[in-house]
Amino acid sequence: MVEFSSLFSGRIAEMRRSEIRELLKLTQKPEIISFAGGLPSPEAFPIDVVKEITIDVLDEKGSVALQYGTTEGLAPLRKELAKRMNKLGVKCTHENILVTHGCQQALDLISKIFLDAHDLVVCSLPSYLGGIGAFGAFQADFIGIPLESDGMNLDVLEGKLKELRKEGKRLKFIYVLPTFHNPAGVTMPAENRKRMIEILKEYDVLALEDDPYGELRYEGDHIDPLMAYDNEDGHVIYLGTFSKILAPGLRLGWAVAPTEILDSLVTAKQSTDLCTSTFSQYIAYEYLHRGLVNSHIEKIKKMYRSKRNIMLEAMETYFPEEVEWVRPEGGMFTWATAPGVDTKELVIKAIEQKVAYVHGAAFRFDGGGRDSMRLNFSYPTEEEVEEGIKRLGRVLKEEMGTS
Amino acid sequence: MVEFSSLFSGRIAEMRRSEIRELLKLTQKPEIISFAGGLPSPEAFPIDVVKEITIDVLDEKGSVALQYGTTEGLAPLRKELAKRMNKLGVKCTHENILVTHGCQQALDLISKIFLDAHDLVVCSLPSYLGGIGAFGAFQADFIGIPLESDGMNLDVLEGKLKELRKEGKRLKFIYVLPTFHNPAGVTMPAENRKRMIEILKEYDVLALEDDPYGELRYEGDHIDPLMAYDNEDGHVIYLGTFSKILAPGLRLGWAVAPTEILDSLVTAKQSTDLCTSTFSQYIAYEYLHRGLVNSHIEKIKKMYRSKRNIMLEAMETYFPEEVEWVRPEGGMFTWATAPGVDTKELVIKAIEQKVAYVHGAAFRFDGGGRDSMRLNFSYPTEEEVEEGIKRLGRVLKEEMGTS
Repeated sequence: MVEFSSLFSGRIAEMRRSEIRELLKLTQKPEIISFAGGLPSPEAFPIDVVKEITIDVLDEKGSVALQYGTTEGLAPLRKELAKRMNKLGVKCTHENILVTHGCQQALDLISKIFLDAHDLVVCSLPSYLGGIGAFGAFQADFIGIPLESDGMNLDVLEGKLKELRKEGKRLKFIYVLPTFHNPAGVTMPAENRKRMIEILKEYDVLALEDDPYGELRYEGDHIDPLMAYDNEDGHVIYLGTFSKILAPGLRLGWAVAPTEILDSLVTAKQSTDLCTSTFSQYIAYEYLHRGLVNSHIEKIKKMYRSKRNIMLEAMETYFPEEVEWVRPEGGMFTWATAPGVDTKELVIKAIEQKVAYVHGAAFRFDGGGRDSMRLNFSYPTEEEVEEGIKRLGRVLKEEMGTS
Repeated sequence: MVEFSSLFSGRIAEMRRSEIRELLKLTQKPEIISFAGGLPSPEAFPIDVVKEITIDVLDEKGSVALQYGTTEGLAPLRKELAKRMNKLGVKCTHENILVTHGCQQALDLISKIFLDAHDLVVCSLPSYLGGIGAFGAFQADFIGIPLESDGMNLDVLEGKLKELRKEGKRLKFIYVLPTFHNPAGVTMPAENRKRMIEILKEYDVLALEDDPYGELRYEGDHIDPLMAYDNEDGHVIYLGTFSKILAPGLRLGWAVAPTEILDSLVTAKQSTDLCTSTFSQYIAYEYLHRGLVNSHIEKIKKMYRSKRNIMLEAMETYFPEEVEWVRPEGGMFTWATAPGVDTKELVIKAIEQKVAYVHGAAFRFDGGGRDSMRLNFSYPTEEEVEEGIKRLGRVLKEEMGTS
């Protein structure tokens, strides 16, 4: 038998299995109420709509829907997505759009075209684990910028960019999740987005905007994506997904990028998987084209808003006074901080009490965030949200010696 | 606007867009008969079966079929695949199987876990372009071994391995397509497979066996995959796909590998796309579980066998005497050699005469194969196969000055 470990690439040693995925295995017992995952509620899937559309797709264009497609993605779907992006203030055509096998694949392709080993990437502290994982697989070096209640700290970011410029170093991109941040639940206000674009221009750097939850707002005014503030100037790549507005099982996302970048992404995708599932793409196209998406988003928002409210009220009721949390205006997560508590150790006790979350340090590459935790409210039922927070409150109180 | 080209990774310069994909764009006019693509016939898709299964899947388990799945793939599907592999003589369990977004993704993941820049990979001359593309994207250095009528030349391979051992260099893997080779149509006999395994053991190297067409045999006796000759010894990774036995639009393939390698592939896949489409996987599972695959394969074989026969007979009738070609026992391609002809230049003239193919040099990284061409017989209709070969015969005769 071949001794494999000596054959593995350098990157393998640096790749960790997602801590969340490993933790999730522990939390799959039915008696455990899990706030650990990042799954949409299964009740949020328009199963009947998908069924109706699928039958039509197979009846009317089965032989093309089951065939290979172009690497860029289905042109009619890309046109629908371009329309949608323009409504969000992003000026683009379908030629700026690549359909991907979920948004995670876009993170992989971006890494593939931009990153050599030890290239610099800026991420917020904390950040989406799938982003860190994708960039890490291409051996990026990370620069962390603190995340505040209004998103990435732009003063610190600007200071860091100034420093890098002095040192003659160049960033590959800044990874941002401006709207309903995963894991932290916070949103960057419009004025910060404007300033961020100014910073991008001043320092001539790219931002990679990850926006899986942008359409799931439960309170406050809509804010356009960061890319909408860029006026076609080419400083932002935008990533969207069908996972939260249709269904993750179809594995469909999209990237919006200047054509030169898009062209490289297409080249990279050819050798990565040839093309995204044509079948899934036809379903998504019909879902948009028939105008079914907006009413479905309203349905999801109603469902998740109610769960969020229950979670926020329950935290008010059951959590120790010292614990603080984010009031997310949308998305699927809130973020709680329990001063002095090691949340990674506490999760064992929490699971004993039949409740689970992900400890904050899992979302950071700098060892920080040890007293924080991510709480998902989209997946559990309303009753589970209430009961789970009650259990977690007990665990926290015991740990913190309060009552 | 950011000056992007200075930001791109080193690999980007080395990545070429697939020549075939670019050529295919030229051949999509309906009046052109194209032998250039590598597509299954749309008549070969079991549309009604997919429809029936999809309705059941959505009715019975819609909420899980539309949800995220595990990175490894759907356990029941992996179990069905393990059963199928065991019938082909490959001893494995579902724990050796990873479901991928098409076989191309497996090529990408294998590259990700094994290849650092300038690592050595052996490929046959010619080789499947998607393999070369995937390894090239991770900046592999290629060693070419001539392909004969009985597959990779094992004498040359052994000589090369001896040489590398002397130089203290280590191969990452040998990429082989033993059955109905794409592009060359040839098959490695059983005794060569045995010898190849001995070579792998002697030199302690891995082989990556790509087997998209193995089940599509039109004449001669079945030969088990190379992996079946390995007796669980861990010298072979096997790649299979649903693209040719169900439909490519679902984007489903699988890898069979020793668990240590599989574990690394799963880690790599997490950051690549989280998981393969659950929806597609449930459809494929039911397709196998309900026992629909074998009768469908018989149907496809009948269809393709007939097209192959028509192509072989038409070449006999219309091609100049000097032209030679492979009689493929299965698969989707034959390979013709026209001594003295530059097939890359000739393709322009062929397209003017409304027939297309892919020139042989496109499948090689060493500049060779300039007088050869790949001809696909699965996609065109029987009438098109006959008429296209007639046209191509005229073009060849004119070029070669024969009549």
